[in-house]
Amino acid sequence: MRLALDAMGGDHAPGPIVAGAVRAVAAQPDLHVTLVGDREQIEAAVTAAGGHLGDRLSLFHCTQVVTMDDSPVDGIRKKPDNSISRTWQLLAEKKVDAIVSAGNTGAMVAGGLRLRRFLKGVRRPGIATVMPTLRGPCVIIDVGANVAPKSRDLFAYGVMGSIFAKHILGREHPSVGLMNVGTEDSKGNELARETHALFNGSTLKERFIGNIEGRDIHRGACDVVITEGFLGNVILKVCEGVFDFVMKLVAHEVLAALSVEKQIAHKAIADLIHKHDYAAYGGAPLLGIDGICIICHGSSGERAITNALNVAAQYARTGLNDKIVEVLEGVPTTGDED
Amino acid sequence: MRLALDAMGGDHAPGPIVAGAVRAVAAQPDLHVTLVGDREQIEAAVTAAGGHLGDRLSLFHCTQVVTMDDSPVDGIRKKPDNSISRTWQLLAEKKVDAIVSAGNTGAMVAGGLRLRRFLKGVRRPGIATVMPTLRGPCVIIDVGANVAPKSRDLFAYGVMGSIFAKHILGREHPSVGLMNVGTEDSKGNELARETHALFNGSTLKERFIGNIEGRDIHRGACDVVITEGFLGNVILKVCEGVFDFVMKLVAHEVLAALSVEKQIAHKAIADLIHKHDYAAYGGAPLLGIDGICIICHGSSGERAITNALNVAAQYARTGLNDKIVEVLEGVPTTGDED
Repeated sequence: MRLALDAMGGDHAPGPIVAGAVRAVAAQPDLHVTLVGDREQIEAAVTAAGGHLGDRLSLFHCTQVVTMDDSPVDGIRKKPDNSISRTWQLLAEKKVDAIVSAGNTGAMVAGGLRLRRFLKGVRRPGIATVMPTLRGPCVIIDVGANVAPKSRDLFAYGVMGSIFAKHILGREHPSVGLMNVGTEDSKGNELARETHALFNGSTLKERFIGNIEGRDIHRGACDVVITEGFLGNVILKVCEGVFDFVMKLVAHEVLAALSVEKQIAHKAIADLIHKHDYAAYGGAPLLGIDGICIICHGSSGERAITNALNVAAQYARTGLNDKIVEVLEGVPTTGDED
Repeated sequence: MRLALDAMGGDHAPGPIVAGAVRAVAAQPDLHVTLVGDREQIEAAVTAAGGHLGDRLSLFHCTQVVTMDDSPVDGIRKKPDNSISRTWQLLAEKKVDAIVSAGNTGAMVAGGLRLRRFLKGVRRPGIATVMPTLRGPCVIIDVGANVAPKSRDLFAYGVMGSIFAKHILGREHPSVGLMNVGTEDSKGNELARETHALFNGSTLKERFIGNIEGRDIHRGACDVVITEGFLGNVILKVCEGVFDFVMKLVAHEVLAALSVEKQIAHKAIADLIHKHDYAAYGGAPLLGIDGICIICHGSSGERAITNALNVAAQYARTGLNDKIVEVLEGVPTTGDED
């Protein structure tokens, strides 16, 4: 499995990013990772992580970096030799099967949009992310790639999310819900009503449970949550914020009440936080791309990058994209291509 | 202080709704509450709650109820003698200073929109709600009254939210943030960019901290969070869902780790849940109305209703609306009235 990793992307790049790759190739004998970025910095980071460049850990040198503060589109345009664009280039040239970056998310999406190597039937890719619920993980798509979607984009997210839920989360018959302000069919804005009608008239009808509300996500009301990217991005970050807030509250108030078992409770709370650490997840796939692209949290450390590389390899092996294309081919297009 | 309460609104109405009013008038000698709804049911509920109808607890009989399942606009139109419309009527006729309902939120908003008794300078009212953060409570507006706002509506929400934060939450110089997908000025959709520019060119400029992200709410990044109603409604319900999810997780995993202090931890967790019980909050004001209107959670019990009546009286006493009008009068209108 051939992967390319944007070694310069991430709040603490390249150190922990490169270390994550060193660890991943050491653990998985069929993994080949190309580190994309500044030669000198990467070589130093590989050495520091106790690895060495060779057959399965190679380097693709480039001179520029799109930073977190750069405007995504401008950053990519004004810095032609940036590590994000070079990583995408390796995917476009089929030199790798999958790419991973913890850099500027907007630039990562913009890099993909620029190449326009989308799956057949996909107008705009969407970022999927896995969320814990009371009934096990669900997938929410899109969380920020497409802030001006059409109903057929949301429908395609339903198709992609279902395939993801089936083959990655192991749900035999994934249920799909549309994020809205109420459960009644007529609720919400025009986009919501159009999308609702599109699902109900489609092959996904049986799996479509209709509109869901914000509180339904964590109840585990469905396996796939469909939302437009602006809303999805806010939801994702609100969840992160509330989780952090509640755990701080719990740590403060519950620990204060205890005396002899304070340490035990402290450890249980720390374990919970660790288990739900957003930076430890395997990253979020940008679905709809011809190839596998995983976008990681900016704060990703070594463990998160190792996970993301493993997840990218798993997606590539599963043949997710072939399955998406197969289903989308059966869906009539509505003629609003652009 | 004269209040009207929709006695028929709420998942368990009229029992706990009426009981909340009985308790409120017993505790506050200057409170007069008119219970709006079916005479027979209300009389029985008053008796059951150990109260009696008289000077300070009166009844306004009406025969219909807009249920939670009714479409808000249709419900109000097809049931002219419904308790929500009658409650609004008492406010419009200046027979009461404030109204409270735990009924169908959409119908409550629709009832207000129908009367069009808005404050000068307000095109559409917005629902404000108080949220806990690591730095004390903040106010988020709008959480569902207006799903198609213009930038000047969002600006008015900034004005109203600031006055609320100052006079109700006690923040001398409240800071205002605009919910967006990133903090850079250019982020988001057209509405976000327009609103951002409007704030920066206004008298609120000094208090405007710019765009905020989902995770900033619970960090306490600002005192007033501005958002359009669709997004705000989803945010509110997502917070509810995540809180519930995390507390269940904590109750399960932390308690499982303990032995001798299990009961103590259980009580601390229950206290935390109780403290953050959404149904116990004093309800959410619909700001921008000429008069005070408090909308409560459908699941509101006796305590929540008592709180809401007290809060409604407090808002009326504070003269919130006069202060809002005063500030909005200084804002030039942009000519897009409708």
